[in-house]
Order: sequence, then C-alpha cells, then structure tokens
Amino acid sequence: MKIGYAIIVPMGIFITVDIGGTQIRAATYPQGTTEPSNIRRTPTRSGDESPFERMCGLIQAIWPKGQVVESITVATAGPLDPATGVVFSAPNIPGWENFPLGDALRERFHVPVYIGNDANLAALGEWRYGAGKGHHDVLYLTISTGIGGGIIIADKLLLGSRGLAAELGHITVLPGGDLCGCGQRGHLETIAAGPGIARYVREQIESGRESSLKGAAQITAKEVSIAAQQGDPLSVEAFTRAGTYLGVALADFLHIFNPSLVIFGGGVSFSGEILFKPMREALQQHVMDASYLHGLKIVTAALADEVGLMGALALAELKKAEG
Amino acid sequence: MKIGYAIIVPMGIFITVDIGGTQIRAATYPQGTTEPSNIRRTPTRSGDESPFERMCGLIQAIWPKGQVVESITVATAGPLDPATGVVFSAPNIPGWENFPLGDALRERFHVPVYIGNDANLAALGEWRYGAGKGHHDVLYLTISTGIGGGIIIADKLLLGSRGLAAELGHITVLPGGDLCGCGQRGHLETIAAGPGIARYVREQIESGRESSLKGAAQITAKEVSIAAQQGDPLSVEAFTRAGTYLGVALADFLHIFNPSLVIFGGGVSFSGEILFKPMREALQQHVMDASYLHGLKIVTAALADEVGLMGALALAELKKAEG
Repeated sequence: MKIGYAIIVPMGIFITVDIGGTQIRAATYPQGTTEPSNIRRTPTRSGDESPFERMCGLIQAIWPKGQVVESITVATAGPLDPATGVVFSAPNIPGWENFPLGDALRERFHVPVYIGNDANLAALGEWRYGAGKGHHDVLYLTISTGIGGGIIIADKLLLGSRGLAAELGHITVLPGGDLCGCGQRGHLETIAAGPGIARYVREQIESGRESSLKGAAQITAKEVSIAAQQGDPLSVEAFTRAGTYLGVALADFLHIFNPSLVIFGGGVSFSGEILFKPMREALQQHVMDASYLHGLKIVTAALADEVGLMGALALAELKKAEG
Repeated sequence: MKIGYAIIVPMGIFITVDIGGTQIRAATYPQGTTEPSNIRRTPTRSGDESPFERMCGLIQAIWPKGQVVESITVATAGPLDPATGVVFSAPNIPGWENFPLGDALRERFHVPVYIGNDANLAALGEWRYGAGKGHHDVLYLTISTGIGGGIIIADKLLLGSRGLAAELGHITVLPGGDLCGCGQRGHLETIAAGPGIARYVREQIESGRESSLKGAAQITAKEVSIAAQQGDPLSVEAFTRAGTYLGVALADFLHIFNPSLVIFGGGVSFSGEILFKPMREALQQHVMDASYLHGLKIVTAALADEVGLMGALALAELKKAEG
C-alpha cells in the first residue's frame, strides 16, 4: 500500500514598488501571475512624512495577510547601485542622497529586497512581459521630462560595473549645446526630451518667430505637441528637430548595440509621427550600413503606467529563479 | 587485484588566424597555453592567389603533424556575423563581400571554425590574457587607421543581434563633420583616428597655417605625432583636438556602459600623453557624475601585435569550454 502525501507549498507574493518624484505605487503579484492582486498609490511628498516613510506605509497597507512575501522590489528614479541597494541621488525625492534604500527596507520588513533604476527595470518589464517578448537584444528609450534607457543584451539587463549603465539621454549630440539637467551640455536629453522641445519653442517665440502658441499661459511639450498636430509650423519644427537628433543618436546606439528591437516609452513618445517620422528619416540617413536595419523593429511601449511595477516584478522573478 | 589504466588524452591544438588588409598571421597554441608552438605570417595579397587561398596555405603550413586540431578561429577585419561565419564586407580584403568564411574553412579543414571581428576579439584577448584580467566590464578602443571597439559586459563579449555591435568609432561627435570611411559624417573616427589627425594638419597648412611639417613629403599621423612631441604647435593642436573628442566620446561610453576599465590599443595610442592628456581633461569635463570615474582605470593594451591571435585563442577556449 502506498500513502500519498500532498505537499502544499503556499504561493508566494511579490511586492513591487515604483517611486518617482510625484507618486509612489505599490502592488502585490501572486507568484506566476502578472495581474496584481492589490495595487495602491500615494503622493511621494505630503506633510512632514519622508518619502521613505510614505513608501513603507504603502507597503504595509498592501502587505498580504497570511501569505508569504517572497521579496520587495523597488523601481526608483536616480542613479543607484543594484548590488548594494544604495541610491546615489534622486533629485526629485528629498533626502535620497547616498540613501541605503535596500538595507532600510530589509531592516523594516525582513524579506529580500531588490532595487533597480526605473528606466532599466522598465526595459526589463517590456522585454519580459511587453513589447520586447521573444527578442534577445532590446534597446529601450523612455522620453518624458528626461530621457532614460535600458538595454537587454543576450537576454540580460546591462548594468555596468556599478549599476550606472544605459544613461542613454546623456550622450553629447550637440557639442556646446544647451545645459542638461545633469550639468553637462548638448546631451540628447536637452533637445529631445519634453522640456527641451518646449524651451526651443519658447526661445524662438521670444526671438520673434510666429507661432499659435505665442502668448500661451504655459508652453510644455504637451502644448507644443497639440499645436504641431494642428499644423503650427514652429511646433512642427521643434518636434522635427527633436526627432532628427533622436534619429542620429539612434544610429549611434544601433552601431553600439545592434539590437533587433527598439522600444520607445514615456509621455513624449505619445506625440507619434511628428516625432517618429523625422527620427526614422535621420536614422536612415545616419546608419552606417543597411544591415543594422535588417529585421530591426521600432515600436512603442506596451505596458503603459504599470511598466515600473511590471519591471520590478520581472526583476523579482529573475532573482527568485536564480535562487 | 586492481588493474590501472592510464587514459591518455592527446593535448589538442588551437589554430588561430588574424587577417587584415596587409598581412595574415597564423599560430598554433597547445591547449592550456598562451605561448604559440608555431607562428607564421604572409602578405594578404600576392600574385594571383586570393586572400582566402593564402590563408588556407598558411594554415596548412602550420598544421601540427600527428596532433588533434581542436578548432580554427579567425579574427578578421570587417563587419561579420559570428553565428553564421559570414563576413559582410572587409574593404581591404579583395572578394570578401558576404563571404562565407566559416563554411569555406570548415569544408577545407573539417574541424570546428569560429569567426570574430578583429576589434571584438582583441577586446576578448585583452580581457582574458592582457590588460583586462580580473575586470568584468571592459571597454576596449583601438585607434589606428580607423577606430574599432570591443565591449565586455559581465564577462561576456557584446555581439548584438547580428554580431554588428561595438562599432565605437562610428558615433556622431560632430554633426555635419568630415566624411567617414563608412560614408557617414562627423564620426569619432574622422577626428581621432590617424587619417583624421593627419588630414587636419594638411588642411590647416593648406589654409596658410605654419607648421614644421609644411612641405613634408608625406604627412601621416606618425609624422604629426613626432612633430607634436618636438613641440610643433599645429601638430599638438591636431592631437589635442583628437584627444578632446575622444574624451567627449569616452564620457558617452561611460554613461552607456559604466565599465571599470578602459583599454586603448592601436598605433595612434602609442602617441601617449599628447593624445591622452586632452582626452582625460575632456573626460573630466564631460562626465555627468564623478561616480563613473570612481575606481575607473584607463590603460593601454598589453598584448601588442599578437592581440588578434590571442583574441582568437580566447574565443577558441571559450567555445571549447562551452562544449
């Protein structure tokens, strides 16, 4: 006679967090799923509470009762070292200067903690669950108030020796050009991210150019995008300029990485063809050999607002699989 | 009673080949060694014989008698696909347009054949046996008549989806600048490789500038380097210009790869401080955060002329280890 035993292993829960300058999101994902069983958000700053305390409160609020939490994985702004869990600086998160986020969370919650740069993890999320599925070499660019990047090479996320790799917005495309948020000049971000697009229009209007945006109460990339869609020549020009430099930089990135897929995310990528048409034209002109374009796909991101949480989930699953 | 058997496994031999526009080298390395047991060279072009036939003749000449050849591994100029062994183009090797080098060698010699881009394999060789030992994230730049690159990321060679990655000389540093050998304009190679350095001096002399090289029978980077060491202001300026753009590009590469080591190889790197001093100054000025320089080492290559053969050996050993 044989006696069978059913060994019941409780399904673990992955907690993932996405923190930026504006808001913190947190979600729980039962192991093996990509649908959150719980998801909440809160502003990053409010009252006297520190962003870290607000994050801890949010994690506490979604902590699953009576279930095993496998890990907490955080996608955060700012350069950081994924190995040590130290955030070097996150300009929009007060107090996060050389902040040992990994250790602080481990002490608080007593579970494994993993930390990743938000753009890097977005790339990982898109590759594992989104627009990048099935590709092995993926370049991800997110264009919003800045330009961030993430690179998958032979199914691995590019981190670099201290986790600082893939800062794709910070390459010089216009020597001596506009000042970048990082303190350098002429970086891709200064021309092709939202603030650069808006600044170009404002400067041209100030120097006497005509535009439907002349006299507008505020001019951000959003207003410029709408004006461009409506045919305002100066606004079209601003996006053409951004797209052209983006295309030149993309040619550089193809020569450097030779990916099979390029994914564009971030708010500015919603501007569509007013940005991507000049980008493709510049890419065609600047690529050194047609073989880099052979089989290359250029797409927009699939994961939308959840990309940070999903990217953190991708890292959590990979860490779990590594043991 | 026990009878012992000694199983004698004959030591295999790796054959490695390095082919460029000028010469072909071939060597045999007994497995587990980095000292060639035989090494020969021959011009790439001579008489009616094709470069491929000349390569085969050289391999035949060093083929070890009575020993097992593990593989033939070739480091070659030109973009190529390491997976298929097809060389897409090697401008200085006649007839190598979409040339199935891997298959052709396998048919001829009936052993495993591996093919790699020469700059990529030089990086692999330096990482495994040379200046890069002990580092996991290495950027290798070779500066001679062109600029080639090779990248080691987390102990793996960056290849890209079709083996075309790491063309680090072909990034735009001066939009609309001089014509590059690849057909594009303003690439790093047009300014910082030997021909670009020499062209700058020639153009300045033609436009009326004074120089000790005025009236020289020929002006290549070598003459400019010697004149610069002797204090010729225009020659110093040419190297300062090259070094400065190299430093700006290196800042880009640090932001992209965050290596712990940068290795410079190729003839132009022998020019020393007249190139590297302005390079370091530009790097310091253009790096977005000091953390990229933290612990970063910048060195010159260790393997000299044998780097192609040693790089091919590194690939052969890695392939053997993979089984």
